[in-house]
Amino acid sequence: MLKQFMVDEEDAIMVQEAPLRETVVTVFKKMGVNEADCALAADVLVTADMRGVETHGVSNMLRGYVTGYGNGTLNPNPDWKIVRETPATANIDSDAGLGIIVVPKAMEIAIEKAKNTGVGMVTIRNGRHMGMASYHAMMALEHDMIGVTMTSCPPGVLPTFGAEPRLGTNPIALAAPADKEPPFVFDAAMSAVAGNKLGLARRLNNKLLPGWVGNAEGEPIMEESDPPAPGYEGPASGYLLPVGGTRELGSHKGYGLMAIVDILGGILSGGGYGANPGRPNFGHYVAAYSIEAFMDTAEFKSTMDEWLQMLRTTKPAPGHDRVMYAGLPESEEVEKRTVHGIPFHPEVIEWFKDICGELSIPYTLS
Amino acid sequence: MLKQFMVDEEDAIMVQEAPLRETVVTVFKKMGVNEADCALAADVLVTADMRGVETHGVSNMLRGYVTGYGNGTLNPNPDWKIVRETPATANIDSDAGLGIIVVPKAMEIAIEKAKNTGVGMVTIRNGRHMGMASYHAMMALEHDMIGVTMTSCPPGVLPTFGAEPRLGTNPIALAAPADKEPPFVFDAAMSAVAGNKLGLARRLNNKLLPGWVGNAEGEPIMEESDPPAPGYEGPASGYLLPVGGTRELGSHKGYGLMAIVDILGGILSGGGYGANPGRPNFGHYVAAYSIEAFMDTAEFKSTMDEWLQMLRTTKPAPGHDRVMYAGLPESEEVEKRTVHGIPFHPEVIEWFKDICGELSIPYTLS
Repeated sequence: MLKQFMVDEEDAIMVQEAPLRETVVTVFKKMGVNEADCALAADVLVTADMRGVETHGVSNMLRGYVTGYGNGTLNPNPDWKIVRETPATANIDSDAGLGIIVVPKAMEIAIEKAKNTGVGMVTIRNGRHMGMASYHAMMALEHDMIGVTMTSCPPGVLPTFGAEPRLGTNPIALAAPADKEPPFVFDAAMSAVAGNKLGLARRLNNKLLPGWVGNAEGEPIMEESDPPAPGYEGPASGYLLPVGGTRELGSHKGYGLMAIVDILGGILSGGGYGANPGRPNFGHYVAAYSIEAFMDTAEFKSTMDEWLQMLRTTKPAPGHDRVMYAGLPESEEVEKRTVHGIPFHPEVIEWFKDICGELSIPYTLS
Repeated sequence: MLKQFMVDEEDAIMVQEAPLRETVVTVFKKMGVNEADCALAADVLVTADMRGVETHGVSNMLRGYVTGYGNGTLNPNPDWKIVRETPATANIDSDAGLGIIVVPKAMEIAIEKAKNTGVGMVTIRNGRHMGMASYHAMMALEHDMIGVTMTSCPPGVLPTFGAEPRLGTNPIALAAPADKEPPFVFDAAMSAVAGNKLGLARRLNNKLLPGWVGNAEGEPIMEESDPPAPGYEGPASGYLLPVGGTRELGSHKGYGLMAIVDILGGILSGGGYGANPGRPNFGHYVAAYSIEAFMDTAEFKSTMDEWLQMLRTTKPAPGHDRVMYAGLPESEEVEKRTVHGIPFHPEVIEWFKDICGELSIPYTLS
């Protein structure tokens, strides 16, 4: 992980998985969410923390969700329903249910369809934040399927040559199983960095790197710069650039990939694109591809092993210890954090103490 | 287009679409390809030239194909067949047929399946070069479907932190229809630049830009550099970087996206990944998503119009005339080239004169 996003070891307060999970479940219960959904929500959030994906874990997301339930933008008991369906596809209205709760149910539908037709694909309108996109994609793994997730986010990224944000950070996730190797799990915003990372860099008092954001006129800032101030939502200087940064480095590819996500997660959900002023928050897309529909599953998984081993044993360039593949460091982090716990910034611990007090929940994290 | 890839106007020899198409058909006939397939092959190549995608047009590809038929790596009459099938999926063995001929047939199968189940998805093993990936994706447009194409290429790109090429340039293409606006058509290598562009930059005597290639040790070259010499296949210095260039700029995203293409087009085709020493050339992936399976098609297309108009009317950053979207400049190029013809580099014209002489074809291009 880049140092911009790492909690300093000396500052960190270590929190164990079990009490964290329990506390998160209780917070969701207090929000009026039913028991099964509380456990699901906690699983999505804590899985992100265990995998080292702080941007989408408890520390970065839970306070926003609590605010959302409080102000009514999140529906604790959504009457989500399938509004259109074919053998391999469905479109769901999520009724303002939190994505970390509704999207796994959509993924289950996609998986069931893939069992019957080889592929299942579901779009979700009227959605809310889905947490770590790869959580949903990874649900396909135990079924020997490849899982895909995309989410069309509110605008915050400048198109190539543009001075106004028109697209969201629009992540793409894909998970594919191996046999003995940790699975391939890709999960990345199609902006140069994820939106949440600006706040994280600020909290950790780190600079933004060249090629991450544009200035007030929409020009890519190609030197180090300060993260935007808390709550900053004004014009640019803090508007993200697409991956690539500049046209010469390929920002039109990042821009195009963000656009693809806006089409599949946004427009094809019937809920509209990310910059649509009337659109409430997020549109989602999930898919599952049955490996057995294309080839022998055991052969696929052993080829994946061979390929992943090849990637991670690539001779490293000077100054680097090793080459990784998407999902490998996250899988190592799970092992580490299972033993040592999750490092939380003191600011996050303070928020937990506050919210536990406010909701009359016993504080048990540290 | 970046100047690195533009034929100088004063040097260019203008060639009209009709005689070019006719000449290309005749060249394929001489290779032993049947009549219908000759027309298809010419359509794929000339469509690339008409769209301004020189890297995948006649000038850059045809000579390689002629060589391939000559040395037996391309089969002019492939007995391609479906080796596995479900209602929404198929896996095809292309029997060493050229991708520009076999992949459109796979896309037709995907489209037929999407009519029945909402989605169709086909992987192709034992494949050969597919030309411009978006050609196949665009086949979905007239059926009111979204088309997707990926192709797992032989290795030539360094993974992030790596000193050995492990993945191909692995392009992703997606085409989605609009009502009045030119369709959205994304088509890009997941390397910083397409492999063919190194040769094009050399032919046009232009420098490679920072962040495009790594040096012999695998370190990203972050200043301008010379393109590799003709035929150069030695270690690095000319090995491409993933889109993003460096880890700080997001090269791990380009690396991960290339890996996704290697999984879907390579491993899931049963033909193996790109760096597999035994694998002959390319593995392909095509998919078609029926819009009507998810929502009202007319509503989708009018929302696409609104969204594309929003993108192309974005206020431009200083120094730029306008913001584009993927597929817009290519559609404008078709209009321009229909009137003025296709600009060919004199070197390409010389090759055409030579090959026409060699194959006893009348030369009619200029």
